[in-house]
Amino acid sequence: MRFSRVYKETVLDSSFENWKKLLSHYFRINQAHLLMLARTEILPKSLVVEIARALSELENEKIDEKLPDGIEDLVFLIERKLSQKIGIEKAGFLHTARSRNDIDATVFRMCVREKLIEVAEELIGLVEKLSEKAKRNVRTVLLMYTHGQPAQPSTLAHYLLSLAFDFLEVLEGLISALRVVNLCPMGSAAITTTGFKIDRKIVSDYLGFFEPVENSYRAIVTSHWINMALNPLKVLASDLSRFAQDVLHKASCEVGIFNFPDELVQISSIMPQKRNPVVLEHLRIRSSVSFGSFNAVEVAFLNTPYQDVNENGDFVLFKFSDGAEVLKQALQLTKEIIEKMTVNEDRVRELAFSTGSTATELADHLVREYRISFRQAHQIVSEYVKSGMRYDSLVENFEKLTGKRFTLSPSQVEEMLSVENFVRVRQVMGGPGEKSIEEMLQSFEDRFQNGKHQIEKVKLFIEESLGKLQDDFASLIFSRS
Amino acid sequence: MRFSRVYKETVLDSSFENWKKLLSHYFRINQAHLLMLARTEILPKSLVVEIARALSELENEKIDEKLPDGIEDLVFLIERKLSQKIGIEKAGFLHTARSRNDIDATVFRMCVREKLIEVAEELIGLVEKLSEKAKRNVRTVLLMYTHGQPAQPSTLAHYLLSLAFDFLEVLEGLISALRVVNLCPMGSAAITTTGFKIDRKIVSDYLGFFEPVENSYRAIVTSHWINMALNPLKVLASDLSRFAQDVLHKASCEVGIFNFPDELVQISSIMPQKRNPVVLEHLRIRSSVSFGSFNAVEVAFLNTPYQDVNENGDFVLFKFSDGAEVLKQALQLTKEIIEKMTVNEDRVRELAFSTGSTATELADHLVREYRISFRQAHQIVSEYVKSGMRYDSLVENFEKLTGKRFTLSPSQVEEMLSVENFVRVRQVMGGPGEKSIEEMLQSFEDRFQNGKHQIEKVKLFIEESLGKLQDDFASLIFSRS
Amino acid sequence: MRFSRVYKETVLDSSFENWKKLLSHYFRINQAHLLMLARTEILPKSLVVEIARALSELENEKIDEKLPDGIEDLVFLIERKLSQKIGIEKAGFLHTARSRNDIDATVFRMCVREKLIEVAEELIGLVEKLSEKAKRNVRTVLLMYTHGQPAQPSTLAHYLLSLAFDFLEVLEGLISALRVVNLCPMGSAAITTTGFKIDRKIVSDYLGFFEPVENSYRAIVTSHWINMALNPLKVLASDLSRFAQDVLHKASCEVGIFNFPDELVQISSIMPQKRNPVVLEHLRIRSSVSFGSFNAVEVAFLNTPYQDVNENGDFVLFKFSDGAEVLKQALQLTKEIIEKMTVNEDRVRELAFSTGSTATELADHLVREYRISFRQAHQIVSEYVKSGMRYDSLVENFEKLTGKRFTLSPSQVEEMLSVENFVRVRQVMGGPGEKSIEEMLQSFEDRFQNGKHQIEKVKLFIEESLGKLQDDFASLIFSRS
Amino acid sequence: MRFSRVYKETVLDSSFENWKKLLSHYFRINQAHLLMLARTEILPKSLVVEIARALSELENEKIDEKLPDGIEDLVFLIERKLSQKIGIEKAGFLHTARSRNDIDATVFRMCVREKLIEVAEELIGLVEKLSEKAKRNVRTVLLMYTHGQPAQPSTLAHYLLSLAFDFLEVLEGLISALRVVNLCPMGSAAITTTGFKIDRKIVSDYLGFFEPVENSYRAIVTSHWINMALNPLKVLASDLSRFAQDVLHKASCEVGIFNFPDELVQISSIMPQKRNPVVLEHLRIRSSVSFGSFNAVEVAFLNTPYQDVNENGDFVLFKFSDGAEVLKQALQLTKEIIEKMTVNEDRVRELAFSTGSTATELADHLVREYRISFRQAHQIVSEYVKSGMRYDSLVENFEKLTGKRFTLSPSQVEEMLSVENFVRVRQVMGGPGEKSIEEMLQSFEDRFQNGKHQIEKVKLFIEESLGKLQDDFASLIFSRS
Repeated sequence: MRFSRVYKETVLDSSFENWKKLLSHYFRINQAHLLMLARTEILPKSLVVEIARALSELENEKIDEKLPDGIEDLVFLIERKLSQKIGIEKAGFLHTARSRNDIDATVFRMCVREKLIEVAEELIGLVEKLSEKAKRNVRTVLLMYTHGQPAQPSTLAHYLLSLAFDFLEVLEGLISALRVVNLCPMGSAAITTTGFKIDRKIVSDYLGFFEPVENSYRAIVTSHWINMALNPLKVLASDLSRFAQDVLHKASCEVGIFNFPDELVQISSIMPQKRNPVVLEHLRIRSSVSFGSFNAVEVAFLNTPYQDVNENGDFVLFKFSDGAEVLKQALQLTKEIIEKMTVNEDRVRELAFSTGSTATELADHLVREYRISFRQAHQIVSEYVKSGMRYDSLVENFEKLTGKRFTLSPSQVEEMLSVENFVRVRQVMGGPGEKSIEEMLQSFEDRFQNGKHQIEKVKLFIEESLGKLQDDFASLIFSRS
Repeated sequence: MRFSRVYKETVLDSSFENWKKLLSHYFRINQAHLLMLARTEILPKSLVVEIARALSELENEKIDEKLPDGIEDLVFLIERKLSQKIGIEKAGFLHTARSRNDIDATVFRMCVREKLIEVAEELIGLVEKLSEKAKRNVRTVLLMYTHGQPAQPSTLAHYLLSLAFDFLEVLEGLISALRVVNLCPMGSAAITTTGFKIDRKIVSDYLGFFEPVENSYRAIVTSHWINMALNPLKVLASDLSRFAQDVLHKASCEVGIFNFPDELVQISSIMPQKRNPVVLEHLRIRSSVSFGSFNAVEVAFLNTPYQDVNENGDFVLFKFSDGAEVLKQALQLTKEIIEKMTVNEDRVRELAFSTGSTATELADHLVREYRISFRQAHQIVSEYVKSGMRYDSLVENFEKLTGKRFTLSPSQVEEMLSVENFVRVRQVMGGPGEKSIEEMLQSFEDRFQNGKHQIEKVKLFIEESLGKLQDDFASLIFSRS
Repeated sequence: MRFSRVYKETVLDSSFENWKKLLSHYFRINQAHLLMLARTEILPKSLVVEIARALSELENEKIDEKLPDGIEDLVFLIERKLSQKIGIEKAGFLHTARSRNDIDATVFRMCVREKLIEVAEELIGLVEKLSEKAKRNVRTVLLMYTHGQPAQPSTLAHYLLSLAFDFLEVLEGLISALRVVNLCPMGSAAITTTGFKIDRKIVSDYLGFFEPVENSYRAIVTSHWINMALNPLKVLASDLSRFAQDVLHKASCEVGIFNFPDELVQISSIMPQKRNPVVLEHLRIRSSVSFGSFNAVEVAFLNTPYQDVNENGDFVLFKFSDGAEVLKQALQLTKEIIEKMTVNEDRVRELAFSTGSTATELADHLVREYRISFRQAHQIVSEYVKSGMRYDSLVENFEKLTGKRFTLSPSQVEEMLSVENFVRVRQVMGGPGEKSIEEMLQSFEDRFQNGKHQIEKVKLFIEESLGKLQDDFASLIFSRS
Repeated sequence: MRFSRVYKETVLDSSFENWKKLLSHYFRINQAHLLMLARTEILPKSLVVEIARALSELENEKIDEKLPDGIEDLVFLIERKLSQKIGIEKAGFLHTARSRNDIDATVFRMCVREKLIEVAEELIGLVEKLSEKAKRNVRTVLLMYTHGQPAQPSTLAHYLLSLAFDFLEVLEGLISALRVVNLCPMGSAAITTTGFKIDRKIVSDYLGFFEPVENSYRAIVTSHWINMALNPLKVLASDLSRFAQDVLHKASCEVGIFNFPDELVQISSIMPQKRNPVVLEHLRIRSSVSFGSFNAVEVAFLNTPYQDVNENGDFVLFKFSDGAEVLKQALQLTKEIIEKMTVNEDRVRELAFSTGSTATELADHLVREYRISFRQAHQIVSEYVKSGMRYDSLVENFEKLTGKRFTLSPSQVEEMLSVENFVRVRQVMGGPGEKSIEEMLQSFEDRFQNGKHQIEKVKLFIEESLGKLQDDFASLIFSRS
């Protein structure tokens, strides 16, 4: 046996399984590289056509179940099969002006950009759900908490748009990440390019990359691009964990602000009030576990030499993919949660009232209306709350302390303390008042559509590039050689 | 005592020490907020002037050594001192339409943007050093490694520009991060803005922010902005650790490609060849420790509720600052290393020759020149290397295997195997050949100057904004009230 | 200047500050090593006495503010001062059969064992508080939650003892860690010991170590001991974060099971029901931040060569110390929380009743008493809960479904549904019933006293060893040389 | 459909796949619990026998491919199948005095203890290989490095035993971890035990646990046990990464101290000296990736409430298993590396001589022999090394500086500078001298055999317990009911 049994079973065989999933990327690269060798006339047309036809056949054949002895990996296996078709002399020319190194680096970037786009698409779906639900809930009152305690009333739209803006920043981060990731290493060969007069731009274009990774050493050794790719994903995972934890609290039976339908809840026959929204815990778990997978990738690169190392290989790459898959699940669960949860507005009003959450607004009103100081206003309202919200005590206290006449009627005071009034008066930029929310929705929508459009553009660009590659490759095969 | 002794000593006192370092940000916010309250006529001019003068006095006074009993924090302490100057009734008006929450969130963003700019400036200095050294070493030959083994010759410029492009991506990441960080929470008050007709744009402009964080809930609760800020820093830390590890290898006494001057080396009197470049280890340590500090920040937010929580507070913020300070040290050490290390070109040639690193080029040449296949070329060159590079064996073997005449003279073969030739022929995009490097330097320079300019622009924008704030505040103080 | 300015300021000066805090350990090592050199007669008595007297003087002198130029570190500075006192020839003999490497490794282990013992002592104090509070609250009813929803009644003692057992496992982990940490590297010299006939046991004994780290290479290079030391600390940090999160929930105003006194609460004058127990958030933060610091230490060692590297140095060591200090704060806060929080038992009963938490017990009783199946019992009780707990509906339903006579009186049913009964019947091992708790307290107490005793023993062992060192060193100084 | 499609596909279906792998544990628990219910006479014998027979049939039946609609998980699916066999009334009795909670917690501990034992067994195999190779290489010289530079000669045995002691500490950590993990939650039911008079010890004994987790709340909620379990594994992963990095250096072509056979090396036909021992990189990757997986588990628990949460569930558990599997691969690779690598002793001598690594020994000898000071000795030897090791210059310099006569012959000096002499004189505890190594091997062997024996004992204990369970369960089935 060429390799030690332990090495083969532990390293080579597992790598073989990984590479099977990456194989179509490898074939695309073969096609693009071959077309480039033809266009630059590095190889003669007839040879190119012969290789192309063999490649085409190979792609339609079944892959071996197991890695045969003595073959290092799937790429060598494919090369051997190619040699069996057209002879080793001719087959060898496919490898002109390239190396395992630039092929691998290119495959991995194709894989990562795919994952980034998939996550971006899930995220876009979620953000659309958030924005749509926000639009339908501009007046749905909600209670906002600080440090686990009720603080101030607001609206569901205000809350959901907060998340939506966070996710929009993540989306913009994904677009930046794609700009770093979607560059083509091909042509770097082992690490210093080649003496052949290749045209790296042709290969890059065919494969849907924005442009080549210019410096060829960097194209092979850097771990930047994968770290940059996982950055926005980690932020997203962290955000989702925080969302889950907050909704778990608001959906707890004692708080009871958010309700979930039976299809997302586990019920106890004997404790009918116990409705565990375990979907939220599963969201939290997927968030922190995807976070952990991305962490593992980051840590794997640390303190490794700035050279071509196997950390830039399939084993670590699949750790990244695992994280992305779990994160996609988390996004799906979040979308489901957003879609199906409802607000118990009566409970919001009850809690807001019982905890005096709207009392600050009455104090603010006294400041604005009677030009008294904050301190006085707070003292008066505080006494009022302590009195159990007795109107007469409010009037008496106010007039005694300020020497002014109190002109609000009992119903005016009540209205002043209502959740709806609290929200209504907050019309400045970013507040929960209807006008503010409308403006927010507008500025959100513009930025979001732009982000969404950019993701779509990248996706389309890649698809069209690969489409052109398939067309040109087909023409090559059917051309007279 | 108002607070439990343990709570005061463990939490409040340490927080007080942190806040002392943040105090100037807090005074800037007071000034901007006050000017806004005046311009929007929410407070009468005369009151504003009185508060402004008192604030101005306060800023010049010495801060207490210790947090007095019963006072929660430095901000409350300042407020009390303000009250002592102009009476609690008037002092209280400064707090109109704001809250501890939006003040804190604003202070923290001012602090983080400062750190980002400081790191960016160190990074710019380092990148300039890299680019300058690259320009001066376009022809300095270097040996490149893969998996810890010598692979191919290249140049110092090629190597340094690889790093430079990595760092440029980090710089661009810092610019993106600043776009996320440099937004103003002021006006969000506790979490839902206020009923007062404030103008958030005024405060944001005075404080050098690009614009307000629109959604007020988000302005208080999100941990996005700090996670987004630390992302490029973590990538940088990881890159530096990889650079350190690689240079440690190239500077080891057995490899001996990089030399360091005595001022960066610890020497043993008895082992003169032992020159420990421990500066590299200290770089590696600072890289991984700053990476770890940023990790600690990320992890602290995980699974906390999406509410206003104290994780968004000084304790975690200073963990971020610690990381940034250590990273700045790492950048300084790297700049020193880049500046002072030199290449032992003779050793490069010796290693390249002895390991046959240039032999691939001879094989490639045979393919191009004689149109033989790769396989044949490799076989011929391989035999030649095994023969101890005997010219006659090369000729004989070539002619026997190909049936063609070998036309290269001994000196041509030698030249073909030289490190210089290897580099020279690699003229395609991204390679180490002089033309490629010149193009690379050009495309690098353009992007870098743009990045540098953007950082400078942000810095200038903040300085001018704060300058205008100081001017307008001074005018206010000296205006007739 | 001997060293580059950047290197000196960034590396040497910061290291100097760290070493100042470690200086007494260094002097202890000097003493122990010198006594050993005397006892083994490697150095003549008179020389030893002269060195000893000079060392003694030096320890009482003030340390320089700044590291002088050209001196690498504090240890070299001390050595130079020693030379100034007795001449470089004699001073040099102190360094016989030792090296900076084994001194450093020994200092660091002395520092880490100190931190471990400090944390252990804080932890012991906390566990004693838990156990004492548990003893006083064997019958204090509490509601237990699963997945954020009320599940079953229990007692405060049951809850606190759960924590106490967790912490006991941590304490036992600390004892194991001490067994790994408290071994002496001295005598390993650079990495291979020495040709002098030293006695490593003497030095180890004087310094309070259990024994030498046998393999001398390992004594210098391993990072095991520090990783092993931080393991139980990380588990503890994680536990505390989980405790904080749970109590935050139980202390929220809607749940209201745990109360906190004013001294641990931040109050709003206008929202009297809003009592933010922010001490819990500060505990959570300190838990996750200390966790993060320990993580940073672990990560710093990853992928560094298994050699003597500077990661085994003061910079990383102080990261460990930082984590331990923050963790000690977390323990102090936890102790304060345990001491001062109280249970609102009426609220427990109210919630238990309203959520039907005790209904399972009624069902179990029906199974045991009437030998009906679980399914039937659950169905009957479920109907009863849905009926609003109407007795007649229970009787009717029971008799219809089982064909048996229902013999429990209304008050018996009520009793059956009481929180107190629920707890009382759970007398099996580990349950909240009084008998079970008494047994648990007993088995806990035995194990805890053992753990506590072991920590005390280690501490005493170290103190006595160092005491003997001081005595013998004093004798040496005052002996006729 | 009972559950939302997204929830079912994302959460329930993936959980179903995980549980299939845990099913045998679940059946063991059913058997043990049923036997206990019989022995305590909580259930009548005839009912128990009927349930037992049905369970036995079920275990032999094929599991469904997919989770049917409306069924929450595999355990409910099995329960339904049981009901289909013997009727829901009877089947329900199996669930007497237990809950999903204690079953899950027990399954997970059975799974983790299995992984711990598997890792321990791989580790034992590796340690045996280390110790055996050390024994065979007591005199095989090796060069030791500090900070990446050659420092001092030693032996392969010295080096390997350093690792062996590290791993022994890990093994002892695994034994401690098993003491924490191998405790039985059964009988805790939901979280507060039960009113039935169960005997938790019986179940615990049958399942091969040391004893029950006493406190029932803790049995369900703590994440301790899994954190404690992963602690030694993380240390091991870190150690292996350091070993890999060190061997990568020593096996590099420039250093050339360690050689690897072809079966572990990737060779280049054209660069014969380039022999990439990529197996070492794959070891490094597996080390850091398993480290990362364990990190993900730790992080997932952080900041979750100290309640029964789904983090204590299959999703996170399988993250732990993933880490353990990758770590087992790392151990297998390490064993292979240890077995097959050889030392190039000539290269060791060459490097030791050329770097003056043994010169310290000559200086030490001068100190001991001529009673001159270190400073003088170092100066003399330093001049000698600088002179290119000319004997006459040594003599002249010595006599001039010391005024003493130099009595060593040229061959004595040469011998003094040999690697063999350097090693030979280091006979104190822990050094590389033969006597020291023999003692080290002895003390190592004793401790290791003890550790190995303890793992074997635990494994046997579990096997015998489960054997007895099978026997008693078989007796039950075949008894007259």
